[in-house]
Amino acid sequence: MKTEEINVSGKTYEEMGFAKLDTDRKRRTGFAEVVFCERKSDEYLIEIYKKLYEKDGCVFGTRASETQAELIRGIFPQAEYDKVSRILQIKKETSAPIDLIGNIVICTAGTADLFVAEEAAKTAEYFGSYVTRVYDVGVSGLHRILSRVDDINKANVVVAIAGMEGALASVIGGLTDKPVIAVPTSVGYGANLGGLSALLTMINSCANGIAVVNIDNGYGAGYMATQINRLAVTGKVKED
Amino acid sequence: MKTEEINVSGKTYEEMGFAKLDTDRKRRTGFAEVVFCERKSDEYLIEIYKKLYEKDGCVFGTRASETQAELIRGIFPQAEYDKVSRILQIKKETSAPIDLIGNIVICTAGTADLFVAEEAAKTAEYFGSYVTRVYDVGVSGLHRILSRVDDINKANVVVAIAGMEGALASVIGGLTDKPVIAVPTSVGYGANLGGLSALLTMINSCANGIAVVNIDNGYGAGYMATQINRLAVTGKVKED
Amino acid sequence: MKTEEINVSGKTYEEMGFAKLDTDRKRRTGFAEVVFCERKSDEYLIEIYKKLYEKDGCVFGTRASETQAELIRGIFPQAEYDKVSRILQIKKETSAPIDLIGNIVICTAGTADLFVAEEAAKTAEYFGSYVTRVYDVGVSGLHRILSRVDDINKANVVVAIAGMEGALASVIGGLTDKPVIAVPTSVGYGANLGGLSALLTMINSCANGIAVVNIDNGYGAGYMATQINRLAVTGKVKED
Amino acid sequence: MKTEEINVSGKTYEEMGFAKLDTDRKRRTGFAEVVFCERKSDEYLIEIYKKLYEKDGCVFGTRASETQAELIRGIFPQAEYDKVSRILQIKKETSAPIDLIGNIVICTAGTADLFVAEEAAKTAEYFGSYVTRVYDVGVSGLHRILSRVDDINKANVVVAIAGMEGALASVIGGLTDKPVIAVPTSVGYGANLGGLSALLTMINSCANGIAVVNIDNGYGAGYMATQINRLAVTGKVKED
Amino acid sequence: MKTEEINVSGKTYEEMGFAKLDTDRKRRTGFAEVVFCERKSDEYLIEIYKKLYEKDGCVFGTRASETQAELIRGIFPQAEYDKVSRILQIKKETSAPIDLIGNIVICTAGTADLFVAEEAAKTAEYFGSYVTRVYDVGVSGLHRILSRVDDINKANVVVAIAGMEGALASVIGGLTDKPVIAVPTSVGYGANLGGLSALLTMINSCANGIAVVNIDNGYGAGYMATQINRLAVTGKVKED
Amino acid sequence: MKTEEINVSGKTYEEMGFAKLDTDRKRRTGFAEVVFCERKSDEYLIEIYKKLYEKDGCVFGTRASETQAELIRGIFPQAEYDKVSRILQIKKETSAPIDLIGNIVICTAGTADLFVAEEAAKTAEYFGSYVTRVYDVGVSGLHRILSRVDDINKANVVVAIAGMEGALASVIGGLTDKPVIAVPTSVGYGANLGGLSALLTMINSCANGIAVVNIDNGYGAGYMATQINRLAVTGKVKED
Amino acid sequence: MKTEEINVSGKTYEEMGFAKLDTDRKRRTGFAEVVFCERKSDEYLIEIYKKLYEKDGCVFGTRASETQAELIRGIFPQAEYDKVSRILQIKKETSAPIDLIGNIVICTAGTADLFVAEEAAKTAEYFGSYVTRVYDVGVSGLHRILSRVDDINKANVVVAIAGMEGALASVIGGLTDKPVIAVPTSVGYGANLGGLSALLTMINSCANGIAVVNIDNGYGAGYMATQINRLAVTGKVKED
Amino acid sequence: MKTEEINVSGKTYEEMGFAKLDTDRKRRTGFAEVVFCERKSDEYLIEIYKKLYEKDGCVFGTRASETQAELIRGIFPQAEYDKVSRILQIKKETSAPIDLIGNIVICTAGTADLFVAEEAAKTAEYFGSYVTRVYDVGVSGLHRILSRVDDINKANVVVAIAGMEGALASVIGGLTDKPVIAVPTSVGYGANLGGLSALLTMINSCANGIAVVNIDNGYGAGYMATQINRLAVTGKVKED
Repeated sequence: MKTEEINVSGKTYEEMGFAKLDTDRKRRTGFAEVVFCERKSDEYLIEIYKKLYEKDGCVFGTRASETQAELIRGIFPQAEYDKVSRILQIKKETSAPIDLIGNIVICTAGTADLFVAEEAAKTAEYFGSYVTRVYDVGVSGLHRILSRVDDINKANVVVAIAGMEGALASVIGGLTDKPVIAVPTSVGYGANLGGLSALLTMINSCANGIAVVNIDNGYGAGYMATQINRLAVTGKVKED
Repeated sequence: MKTEEINVSGKTYEEMGFAKLDTDRKRRTGFAEVVFCERKSDEYLIEIYKKLYEKDGCVFGTRASETQAELIRGIFPQAEYDKVSRILQIKKETSAPIDLIGNIVICTAGTADLFVAEEAAKTAEYFGSYVTRVYDVGVSGLHRILSRVDDINKANVVVAIAGMEGALASVIGGLTDKPVIAVPTSVGYGANLGGLSALLTMINSCANGIAVVNIDNGYGAGYMATQINRLAVTGKVKED
Repeated sequence: MKTEEINVSGKTYEEMGFAKLDTDRKRRTGFAEVVFCERKSDEYLIEIYKKLYEKDGCVFGTRASETQAELIRGIFPQAEYDKVSRILQIKKETSAPIDLIGNIVICTAGTADLFVAEEAAKTAEYFGSYVTRVYDVGVSGLHRILSRVDDINKANVVVAIAGMEGALASVIGGLTDKPVIAVPTSVGYGANLGGLSALLTMINSCANGIAVVNIDNGYGAGYMATQINRLAVTGKVKED
Repeated sequence: MKTEEINVSGKTYEEMGFAKLDTDRKRRTGFAEVVFCERKSDEYLIEIYKKLYEKDGCVFGTRASETQAELIRGIFPQAEYDKVSRILQIKKETSAPIDLIGNIVICTAGTADLFVAEEAAKTAEYFGSYVTRVYDVGVSGLHRILSRVDDINKANVVVAIAGMEGALASVIGGLTDKPVIAVPTSVGYGANLGGLSALLTMINSCANGIAVVNIDNGYGAGYMATQINRLAVTGKVKED
Repeated sequence: MKTEEINVSGKTYEEMGFAKLDTDRKRRTGFAEVVFCERKSDEYLIEIYKKLYEKDGCVFGTRASETQAELIRGIFPQAEYDKVSRILQIKKETSAPIDLIGNIVICTAGTADLFVAEEAAKTAEYFGSYVTRVYDVGVSGLHRILSRVDDINKANVVVAIAGMEGALASVIGGLTDKPVIAVPTSVGYGANLGGLSALLTMINSCANGIAVVNIDNGYGAGYMATQINRLAVTGKVKED
Repeated sequence: MKTEEINVSGKTYEEMGFAKLDTDRKRRTGFAEVVFCERKSDEYLIEIYKKLYEKDGCVFGTRASETQAELIRGIFPQAEYDKVSRILQIKKETSAPIDLIGNIVICTAGTADLFVAEEAAKTAEYFGSYVTRVYDVGVSGLHRILSRVDDINKANVVVAIAGMEGALASVIGGLTDKPVIAVPTSVGYGANLGGLSALLTMINSCANGIAVVNIDNGYGAGYMATQINRLAVTGKVKED
Repeated sequence: MKTEEINVSGKTYEEMGFAKLDTDRKRRTGFAEVVFCERKSDEYLIEIYKKLYEKDGCVFGTRASETQAELIRGIFPQAEYDKVSRILQIKKETSAPIDLIGNIVICTAGTADLFVAEEAAKTAEYFGSYVTRVYDVGVSGLHRILSRVDDINKANVVVAIAGMEGALASVIGGLTDKPVIAVPTSVGYGANLGGLSALLTMINSCANGIAVVNIDNGYGAGYMATQINRLAVTGKVKED
Repeated sequence: MKTEEINVSGKTYEEMGFAKLDTDRKRRTGFAEVVFCERKSDEYLIEIYKKLYEKDGCVFGTRASETQAELIRGIFPQAEYDKVSRILQIKKETSAPIDLIGNIVICTAGTADLFVAEEAAKTAEYFGSYVTRVYDVGVSGLHRILSRVDDINKANVVVAIAGMEGALASVIGGLTDKPVIAVPTSVGYGANLGGLSALLTMINSCANGIAVVNIDNGYGAGYMATQINRLAVTGKVKED
């Protein structure tokens, strides 16, 4: 499959026919292109992993199934797959470990929300942020989160992840002065409406300093938390 | 307007043509018939107040407008109207005050929820329950409710009233071992959907021991809280 | 897996890394911690059953699949699994049977609602309540429920379980003076919206003394019914 | 305003420019054209009343406001307006009263549903059906409707009108063998969703022999009930 | 499994423990008890078929899966199963065929709606009605339904079945003077919302004489159509 | 108020501080800028009318209230206001009338939909299209639309406007081979959901060649119909 | 299976018992009958393919599964199946290729929308339109679509296909003067509501000249785009 | 009205009976208590303004009506009211102006969104942030926003405000590397669902770095933007 680099007013992309790969992203935004694996056909997935690996020497994919992981590892045996977060990653073969900067606190209401939390955490770490995990601190046993308030307040930004009724976001918003990114999850049953109930709870929060991303969107939360974390540490989202 | 008493297998009602007044309610359930004033025509409202006053010497009406209050007070000058709860009441001319039994704690998230809280409180008091008011303890300033946990735990049953995202119910459910009746309110803006968002929050609560009544339904919460409070005090809902 | 006991202002929990087990629950609320098995990974489920068994000598799990039941019975052969209610339980090896107190009446509209009813019933019995089952008394054949009114009125609290249009709750609310906990079920077809239609019916009930829990939430209904039943029998939810 | 009669394969209508009046309706369907007054401009309303009066010597209008009633009575002083049903009618100046045939029973859950019930009743009577009114028999006091079962069973067809949770339709469906036309009303508060909750209840009814018309659509129910009533009495909807 | 016959004010049912079989239905309503097979456990299904067969010599079951059909035919080899309508029936071993009375016209918009139409048709025939099938006459090719208007007008009652946008009901309502029972189906794609879009179309119909049953509820339509058809033929729903 | 002309890669706009007026629109798209009057403050509305009049010698405003009409006519006495369509227009003082090209047929289901139809018609005429009005041809009296099929088929494009259940779009789609732009209206009652029910009907249409614009969006329909009409007449949307 | 040709006022269809095949379509509308394969039983599918092949020598089927493709290719080995668009086609055995006329530009936001885009493209090509594909130009990398504006403006009509938030339609509407047919897709996750979120975005578009078809309805978009494309090229939808 | 200061583990509030004023907020979060004026009774509003003025020498109120503005200005003549943003403010009588730090860019799609934008802008300025306003840059005229990309990229954080279909947020997200707070507005008509459509668009955005606050919640956006802006400038949200 032949690809071609297109340049539009200084911004470039790779024309692959079936897709336009945003190979210019990192330079432009400070964040490398990430592969959303879900629904991608095998053929396209391989093509994209190859192209990005060739360009950057590393690939970071989200929402990968176990089957997709096996597929890619057939080609890149060094690819690592994490079942909980469903992240399928080819890491750079650098000798030195990256210094993770700042501090993002990621809280979950229950253990069932872990799959979203780990997607957020690993995304933030991939983009260079230091992450503190505060899991299973839902409001039905309030003493659990109260015991962690000091840790939460050390963050530059907090990610609050909850399904069911999603009250965690409001409680955290009331306990910290840091911006809170709320992630509703599809965890729950009955009238949880696939996460819509938690989304509505969070959007209507009576606490200040809370904004919401899509249901189960751990990646989006990890991304935006990193933007804010970078601003807090260096005053900039990307290096000049 | 002529009315007629109908007796069905030991249960009676008053046939008024436009309505069948459940004058038998108190004997049957331990709770006297209450008038839902909203949408009632002037003519019917007067007729019903007269009929009940004649029967019991007292009337308790909910959702009364100021206009309706004036209308009834033109006939019964002793009628009392409370603007916040919109309760329009003719009290018994008894000399001795009623002993209020047990303890129902009524909590609100904000001051805007007071109209529902007072409907619940006055209803519970009318039916003979002692009420403790714990207002404006929403989760955005968690220390406010934490300062009142001891008071809340003295209740036989707790009524948790909140609009916006309605997280108060879950937090209270996590702080007390008593049954909680949650009342979503229409207070809020944006995506609060007239209280539906708070209702969904409460229905999906991760805490145990919470059940939900209709949006703004202070009366219903006060009624059911009284049923439980009576059970706790006397082991029975009504006297034999 | 190492765990650690954390103590926050007199309340404790067990830090398991992936979860914070509320081992303090029984002392604090009078109700032991219950395991919600759905969506739990095999590894975590085993860990939690082990931890709770070690602590209390018994475990009560809801929403367990048959596969999970087999998994746990591979480790605890004495575990009992009920296919209808999906409850997976390790009972205490006590010689004396527990005295069940009070009376909770559990009604269903149809036979298809049994899976919810049995979850409620077994939960209430686990927490020490006596349960009367009144099944298949839906309103399309009204004489069936009328034949059981006396039984219903012997309850301290009634649980009304119905799918389809959920009218049973209103009818029971009109027949008894006891508090009614209504449980909408996902049973039905067409525009039942996975139980949301029944939920709306019950929330909008014209009868007094009805509060609603989440769709199919038999556990929640059994829990709250027990709180009320204990209040009716002993005046307290938990022993001092 | 000039009008013109158009004939399409034996069916005619009156072309009025802004409207095509179905003056052929009665011959074709056995039911004369009825005016839906809501939202009609004054000018058009007058034009239509004039045209129909000229053609038939009588006009039957639904959803008329008091202002519209005054407008029409300024031109036709003999027009009669009923505030409850909002029907604005010019009757035929015939000497002999019409014989009302068959029997339609119209039930309401509460007194607040009367505005829909009277629209249904007067519509059915206008089209020649005999109507029995059974009002205020909601399920929260079940003995009220049980006392009227015999009356209900004398109907050829029953109209069940209810707001709030709309359980009345199911209960009636379970008590009678006659077809039931259910009318949800917008009466209620909180999560009644303008009548949508009652509509869903009725559509999901567990009882047989129930079909539903639009919220508050008393006219539609009265119309269809008449079709069925005529079939029961004469075996035909219209005379040959 | 032991069963017991219960008699409540002249109405009886069979107490089966897990269910209360309404064996009195036929005498009371003129329609024998019908089995809704969906979701029934094998054990209960067999028990119910046996009980009804023993009582009446015939059984009529709806929404039966192929597996259930095989199960029942293992016990009653004479049982007949129709894959389209999913009706599983044990017919009476009578020598004389039943005379089907009156005329119900059943129309569908497309061929994909046949599974609902055949459920309605076979139900109506089981209850003794004569049925005329007018299939695949959706409004996108209007000449198809116009060619059948005469057939439609010979009906006592019309059943209009459509998915997608459900416009068929309104068009039929405009073409006939007979009552129309509209059945929305789940057929469609995109924003059809599982049939809810078609339901809303039909409920909002601008034509008169239309009432709506639940999505895909062919049985309900066949039942009510029979009630009306019997009224048209004999003036009664059941024989005295 | 000072304004400034901004030029971006050959496209210009007028910077007015509170707004960026797209004065370049006509050259770019072949359609002059139109003013959406609703919600505009008096001050801004006047400023915009002045600016556009100065530039083009004419202004076309939609959704203008009567108050806004009076306001503008206080400054431009030649402004014309149409109450039905709510269009507020200052016409060019040209001597020669514009030749309207092609043919757009605009159909409505009822007379209550006229306010949308006239917005569409006047918009199309303003942009130079010839319009044929076919009003009040709803499907409840099908002979009305059948009598106009020939007129409809003379169109290059048809606009189908309907509230209630919106079946008109499907029927027209089945009667013509021309593209149909469907406009749901908010006309109706009960479960019409402010036009959402009609929108769903039209989006789910079983007929081909139908696309839908927003509820009550007559302007949008008139605009797109003109684009298609111009393509049909000249093969181009705008002149080169 | 015997079929019969029915002729209604010059329009014919083929009566197949289970279906009425619109064999007259091409003459009437300029578009041959197309088979919607989804949900069709094997038996009916074969019958329809045979009938159409016999009549026209070619068949075009949409939404065919791989299983259905194999089924048909067992009978017509020359049938071609495209996995992406799910189109199952028997082409005419003509020697000369068809000249594709005009120009339809089909844009997608992402690669996941290709299955809809190819259904639209192949449909348009089948009906004789020339198609330009502009894929993967979603708004999150705006330079990609800006690089293709010239191509887009060469279209007679643009099809904008997008899932997620569906913003592509508005952006294209702002960049071109040609009519835009917007197709929401079910691509996305979280609160995308199966495509309903994208549908709402497109229906509410602030840009002019956009109309919307059903979710994932590539066929409908290709059909209407062809109608407009033909008008632009020949001034007519079908040949006389 | 007597008030009392309560101190809970170092956090204080003012007990006013009807409310618990969070006078401790500024010290705790770096943001002074703000008054949400909507729905507050006159009596309470005055009491709160007095209390805060006494404490801090300044008050900042949002969602104030003109009537409320007059009420407060009767007591505090120096209070300033802005009609667009509905902010009612008593400023500190300090001699030196505050230095506004950092840079928040606030964009709106249209002029109708200004009321939300100004609430956000004034809130951010009150809390000490420098604000750049980029108004009326909706995507229907894309060149308007492209002309401001450089200004947008100078921000630390961007607030994107849009009604209708809300596509602006995605486009900005694709043009900048800074975090974007998206605010859906209730501006629009038809199927905008009071802003819910725009909310869904923004939540489903295909662009990275976007989080959403409640409909019309300018205050919430200004608050959170300030948190991030402070982090970018000083690395902290509040001073130590």
